[in-house]
Amino acid sequence: MELSQEFFMKMALKQAELAFAADEVPIGAVVVANNQVIGKGFNQVETLNDPTAHAEMLAITAASSFLNSKYLNECTIYVTVEPCVMCYGAIKNARIKQVILGCLEPKHGFTNVVSKSSKLNIKTGILEEESVELMKSFFSTKRGPTNER
Amino acid sequence: MELSQEFFMKMALKQAELAFAADEVPIGAVVVANNQVIGKGFNQVETLNDPTAHAEMLAITAASSFLNSKYLNECTIYVTVEPCVMCYGAIKNARIKQVILGCLEPKHGFTNVVSKSSKLNIKTGILEEESVELMKSFFSTKRGPTNER
Repeated sequence: MELSQEFFMKMALKQAELAFAADEVPIGAVVVANNQVIGKGFNQVETLNDPTAHAEMLAITAASSFLNSKYLNECTIYVTVEPCVMCYGAIKNARIKQVILGCLEPKHGFTNVVSKSSKLNIKTGILEEESVELMKSFFSTKRGPTNER
Repeated sequence: MELSQEFFMKMALKQAELAFAADEVPIGAVVVANNQVIGKGFNQVETLNDPTAHAEMLAITAASSFLNSKYLNECTIYVTVEPCVMCYGAIKNARIKQVILGCLEPKHGFTNVVSKSSKLNIKTGILEEESVELMKSFFSTKRGPTNER
């Protein structure tokens, strides 16, 4: 049975909740191949004091390790929030086939910075409300009810 | 005594030589704070089968770990070859103050992909000949004497 995009986005949201619980900006990611999660990650920048430890990076490293391959060209990555430029670059380097997002991130998302001609097979709006809500709740505990990072 | 940019680029080139010896695309990086190297790295994509294991990423993670800080805002990164988009994003995320390059990389470097309005304090051409030469020798062993990656 082909599992739905909502199913995998729920798994990414579970990762995001782990980030939330660790007082990290709540973003989660899973990498899927053949209907199976082969890598997952949640934002750990604060915990690891590492600016590269975004959810997508950790999920990509895990998936590459699982497949023993630097290319993930048959894979889809599910991310709860639009990736930053670093993670966009990692997704391109890994040649990931498709990107499914919960919601866009107008301030820190890559689409503002990366040239429009640089294509990525991308779809957004899967469990959008849940993805947005998690970010909103996190930042409301930080500095009032805004969606800013 | 203030050490020269050439001094630190030589250290980055030493890292690049380690990559070369490991049959990796020969790119090296060091992160410098207060006249001291606090993080270094060489490309290990093939060795680790990890598309995120670029020289700059490893050097940034090492420097953040050394300083116990996700921001490297007082640091300079020396890279032998112009970073890709992923590494550009990591440099921005880490808020690195200055970027010193050996040489540009017209094909995979970030400047082609990232919007011109996104500023980075960047200087290139430090030990340019050595940086270019190392890349050329590497690729000449792979597919004839070109500078392509």
